[in-house]
Amino acid sequence: MPVSEQPLVGVIMGSKSDWPTMQHAVDMLTQFNVPHEVKVVSAHRTPDLMFEYAQTAEARGLQVIIAGAGGAAHLPGMVAAKTLIPVLGVPVKSRALNGQDSLLSIVQMPGGIPVGTLAIGDAGAKNAGILAAQIVGNHNPAVRDAVRAWRQAQTDDVLANPDPSVANAI
Amino acid sequence: MPVSEQPLVGVIMGSKSDWPTMQHAVDMLTQFNVPHEVKVVSAHRTPDLMFEYAQTAEARGLQVIIAGAGGAAHLPGMVAAKTLIPVLGVPVKSRALNGQDSLLSIVQMPGGIPVGTLAIGDAGAKNAGILAAQIVGNHNPAVRDAVRAWRQAQTDDVLANPDPSVANAI
Amino acid sequence: MPVSEQPLVGVIMGSKSDWPTMQHAVDMLTQFNVPHEVKVVSAHRTPDLMFEYAQTAEARGLQVIIAGAGGAAHLPGMVAAKTLIPVLGVPVKSRALNGQDSLLSIVQMPGGIPVGTLAIGDAGAKNAGILAAQIVGNHNPAVRDAVRAWRQAQTDDVLANPDPSVANAI
Amino acid sequence: MPVSEQPLVGVIMGSKSDWPTMQHAVDMLTQFNVPHEVKVVSAHRTPDLMFEYAQTAEARGLQVIIAGAGGAAHLPGMVAAKTLIPVLGVPVKSRALNGQDSLLSIVQMPGGIPVGTLAIGDAGAKNAGILAAQIVGNHNPAVRDAVRAWRQAQTDDVLANPDPSVANAI
Amino acid sequence: MPVSEQPLVGVIMGSKSDWPTMQHAVDMLTQFNVPHEVKVVSAHRTPDLMFEYAQTAEARGLQVIIAGAGGAAHLPGMVAAKTLIPVLGVPVKSRALNGQDSLLSIVQMPGGIPVGTLAIGDAGAKNAGILAAQIVGNHNPAVRDAVRAWRQAQTDDVLANPDPSVANAI
Amino acid sequence: MPVSEQPLVGVIMGSKSDWPTMQHAVDMLTQFNVPHEVKVVSAHRTPDLMFEYAQTAEARGLQVIIAGAGGAAHLPGMVAAKTLIPVLGVPVKSRALNGQDSLLSIVQMPGGIPVGTLAIGDAGAKNAGILAAQIVGNHNPAVRDAVRAWRQAQTDDVLANPDPSVANAI
Amino acid sequence: MPVSEQPLVGVIMGSKSDWPTMQHAVDMLTQFNVPHEVKVVSAHRTPDLMFEYAQTAEARGLQVIIAGAGGAAHLPGMVAAKTLIPVLGVPVKSRALNGQDSLLSIVQMPGGIPVGTLAIGDAGAKNAGILAAQIVGNHNPAVRDAVRAWRQAQTDDVLANPDPSVANAI
Amino acid sequence: MPVSEQPLVGVIMGSKSDWPTMQHAVDMLTQFNVPHEVKVVSAHRTPDLMFEYAQTAEARGLQVIIAGAGGAAHLPGMVAAKTLIPVLGVPVKSRALNGQDSLLSIVQMPGGIPVGTLAIGDAGAKNAGILAAQIVGNHNPAVRDAVRAWRQAQTDDVLANPDPSVANAI
Repeated sequence: MPVSEQPLVGVIMGSKSDWPTMQHAVDMLTQFNVPHEVKVVSAHRTPDLMFEYAQTAEARGLQVIIAGAGGAAHLPGMVAAKTLIPVLGVPVKSRALNGQDSLLSIVQMPGGIPVGTLAIGDAGAKNAGILAAQIVGNHNPAVRDAVRAWRQAQTDDVLANPDPSVANAI
Repeated sequence: MPVSEQPLVGVIMGSKSDWPTMQHAVDMLTQFNVPHEVKVVSAHRTPDLMFEYAQTAEARGLQVIIAGAGGAAHLPGMVAAKTLIPVLGVPVKSRALNGQDSLLSIVQMPGGIPVGTLAIGDAGAKNAGILAAQIVGNHNPAVRDAVRAWRQAQTDDVLANPDPSVANAI
Repeated sequence: MPVSEQPLVGVIMGSKSDWPTMQHAVDMLTQFNVPHEVKVVSAHRTPDLMFEYAQTAEARGLQVIIAGAGGAAHLPGMVAAKTLIPVLGVPVKSRALNGQDSLLSIVQMPGGIPVGTLAIGDAGAKNAGILAAQIVGNHNPAVRDAVRAWRQAQTDDVLANPDPSVANAI
Repeated sequence: MPVSEQPLVGVIMGSKSDWPTMQHAVDMLTQFNVPHEVKVVSAHRTPDLMFEYAQTAEARGLQVIIAGAGGAAHLPGMVAAKTLIPVLGVPVKSRALNGQDSLLSIVQMPGGIPVGTLAIGDAGAKNAGILAAQIVGNHNPAVRDAVRAWRQAQTDDVLANPDPSVANAI
Repeated sequence: MPVSEQPLVGVIMGSKSDWPTMQHAVDMLTQFNVPHEVKVVSAHRTPDLMFEYAQTAEARGLQVIIAGAGGAAHLPGMVAAKTLIPVLGVPVKSRALNGQDSLLSIVQMPGGIPVGTLAIGDAGAKNAGILAAQIVGNHNPAVRDAVRAWRQAQTDDVLANPDPSVANAI
Repeated sequence: MPVSEQPLVGVIMGSKSDWPTMQHAVDMLTQFNVPHEVKVVSAHRTPDLMFEYAQTAEARGLQVIIAGAGGAAHLPGMVAAKTLIPVLGVPVKSRALNGQDSLLSIVQMPGGIPVGTLAIGDAGAKNAGILAAQIVGNHNPAVRDAVRAWRQAQTDDVLANPDPSVANAI
Repeated sequence: MPVSEQPLVGVIMGSKSDWPTMQHAVDMLTQFNVPHEVKVVSAHRTPDLMFEYAQTAEARGLQVIIAGAGGAAHLPGMVAAKTLIPVLGVPVKSRALNGQDSLLSIVQMPGGIPVGTLAIGDAGAKNAGILAAQIVGNHNPAVRDAVRAWRQAQTDDVLANPDPSVANAI
Repeated sequence: MPVSEQPLVGVIMGSKSDWPTMQHAVDMLTQFNVPHEVKVVSAHRTPDLMFEYAQTAEARGLQVIIAGAGGAAHLPGMVAAKTLIPVLGVPVKSRALNGQDSLLSIVQMPGGIPVGTLAIGDAGAKNAGILAAQIVGNHNPAVRDAVRAWRQAQTDDVLANPDPSVANAI
């Protein structure tokens, strides 16, 4: 996991089993050259670590925390309760309910403590990385431009391959 | 709120707005003469209080904690993460989703940290009080007998009023 | 299935097909040295056995009954209707609805007869075993300490393996 | 509640609060002159009465049992487990989940013990009464003809009032 | 498909693809020696055949129609609209929504036209066969006794194999 | 109900109780001067009328049929099974499930028989009227232009009233 | 992808990954000899192309647009906001929620901008092709007759193969 | 609506009927002295305005856009498709489905275009205002401190009123 310079974004998840999902967030941060750190922090198995992580985030210079969890997913909301920096939540697809429980546990926060919630699963993790970069990009032109270029490339790719029945070049 | 002697059961809830639901738990504990305490403890607004409450529960002699919350209901699960005494969760009916979010946020705990979850709303709160008394009653014959008598009265009431189209006597 | 001394916890399930789920409850009871018994008791196919089992549980010294079932899961609630000892319910994942039917059939009990409900599937079964041990542990220091040690080991394992992208040691 | 001659259909419900729904079943049986009996029988509060009711139904000459219940609705399925006569289930609208819990708890019976389930609420109760009459009508021409006439009148009423924007005559 | 003597039960389904589900209904009718017929009748692709089938069912001596269909499952309800004999509906598991659409399309009939609905999928089909036999058995002692014997064998099988961790004897 | 000249659109509904919803479809057709007819046609109570209506629609010159129904809503799909002209379905809000059953019963048609489905309730009925006009408008410039003008006015109204906290002029 | 003469129907989709679903729409248009065009147009990655496509559709002679998309499926509704020709929406099955999100994102349009929505997945795509042909067929007897013949063949196929347990003849 | 200096946050909504919900976002921005603007921008009725608004947001100095919408809620996602500044989405409670459609239409965005989604209804709108302030606060100490003070007051209020059965002191 590349962790360069002073991290601006912290990516945490409740379990190692969330990694195949959450790595998509990390991939985007890497793509945009946003310094970040990655760690397993479990709301239920390491509650004290979670509080310490959230509580020190602002002082350590983090600008966004991305938290992924599944089932009764309490990590994003509890971290948000202990910090003033923006928290983004990624509902990891759960075994029985396909992430519907994860989604509701993360997004339905009571008034007072916000969690910006993304889609269930890989798409949500990827988008959490992009949204974190967009937030950082508000005051970091290099990151903003990196997102701009990536977005343009994404658009160009669709425009260059309009026929759905033909496999993309390369 | 009657709080007699050393409390054996702690009843907590995330907000004063949960009281109309959670008082049904308290009513049952009072009915069975189970010493208890009642307090607003919010996972999101008072996270430190929540941890301190959970962490000291065992030493203070509590045998059961009943926690009620709505929406992204993290209180029962987070309390359970910080204590070894049994935690019962009551999903309070939420405004948009009628407590479906509360239920999933409470019941879908990952393996390792259990919350015994009751029904959404008043029935669940009432049953949390009864189940707490049943747990206490395992080693407290007076409480066990109080539950037994109450249950028998409940049965007798149905048996004495078999015709659904006639209003009950009294 | 190890069944040692006078059982304190009874683990029952509606069908042999529930065993791959319910064995996780039994594994935890074994882990914590809680004497237990295991049996197939079907609400629909052996209703008389179910009533007899529930009715004699208290006299036989059981302190908790764990009941697992799927679909229109009536076993936990009906057992609870016939005993005063605490009943924990495990919603087994069903074929068409992934256990959503099992969950609602177990948790939505009317006021008067409580079932402490755990998560759908393996996590729920595991947690039922842990919660039963926590209940027993209220008056059994050895069991309480066994749960405490296991919980601490679980926490230590997360703390020792913070990088999600690296496979755990051992 | 008119209970004439030897009842052919038994209408039971888990609570007096189910009567406003279940009376629609009784109304239809009365309409078709099907002898019937009506009683509160609670799966959870009077389990022994429930078993006795189901067990003696065949010998007492019942040809159909209609059972209505809400929430974790176990009455229809448990009655079906104790008798060989056809059981029809009516999911009563529940407070938090509008009868979705009642529906799943009744309809999702495991293979081996059937419950013929009707719609949630009033329409379902009405239809349970009609379906019971259709079953009785298989060998009772007077009941069959009563249903036939009622159904024809229902059709004629629609045909005579084709304009939705005009209030029906009478 | 064995079709002996004058059929008493008609088993229809919307498509050949429903056969793996619906054969469980036929298996039970065969088990109980209930004369039956089996046919593909599609509400949407052969609406006229469907009406003719329903309309002639009573005169042809059918006592029950079992109709299985998936998705926007209109077959059971439309058949019920055209006959006075009892109609049982089996929601076949659909590709996207696992039969939740099938279930609601069948069970939520408006007041006036009942369909006795069984569980989604194989269990529902099996139970439709059993329930049809129970209805026929009201006036056919041989069928009633066949169901009684099968039910007893089912109970005995559970009682003889109480240990879930041991594979059943042949 | 204004029914001028040869109707091009037929608006039918399963019950008079659907009128408060379905009148929004009629209002739009009137707004766009699309000749139309309105009638109660029940799939379950008047199945023969339904078939006759659908079967004769093409010969009578209808270009679109709008069918509204609630619960197990079979009207749109069954009409579509009996005609080659486009059928639009409106899921009417049902009592217990708020139209979720209506929606799935209408939209989840099997491959072969399409129903173009609109939103649940008033918005869906209004949009059915607009979509019918758009279809007619393909070959009827006056209707196309009427829709164009109405859509432009709708846009202008939003543009003229950008401040949400101020009541609209007029 | 055969694109003959002046297209009358445009088939668009948000991503190449939607092609396995959407090709069923194209197959039906080909079957009925309806001239059509096919293109990837993404609401989120190529919003300007989407607007241009919708905006020029009428002038280019399109009579129907079929738009397929999954998840937060905005393509059909946004295209409908920018054209007066009828738009049909196909909810593509999504990974986590099986197309329930796609369905609601497409069908629940506010009053004013209609999208005629078909079933989730392959059946919906196929039906979108048929419904488009039915709309075109209103003023194109050859297309109407092609649909008629195909529908009759579909009916004949069911009638010729009534036994579900026997594989169809070639 | 107070709109002071160069706005940093834009609050838009699809309809004036969303104002009672969305004003909670505006209230929080006002509370924290975050300069903002408020406007009705409809994805479906004013698509060109929507694109222009999104497209010019960055140049106009906005740092966050909050977009609220209900039903098939396309506004947040489509705005996000046309800007690089962070977009927060508020699912407004819808009439039939209580905002479940709004939530899924907003949160389930495909990988590539993120929307940070808040809870359904008032709580979500309030939290969108707070989260926007937290994002702005990353580089604006006055706003960060205003959020900090408000959060502390919120905590203090709970701590000062621990008894749920007693009304708060003024």
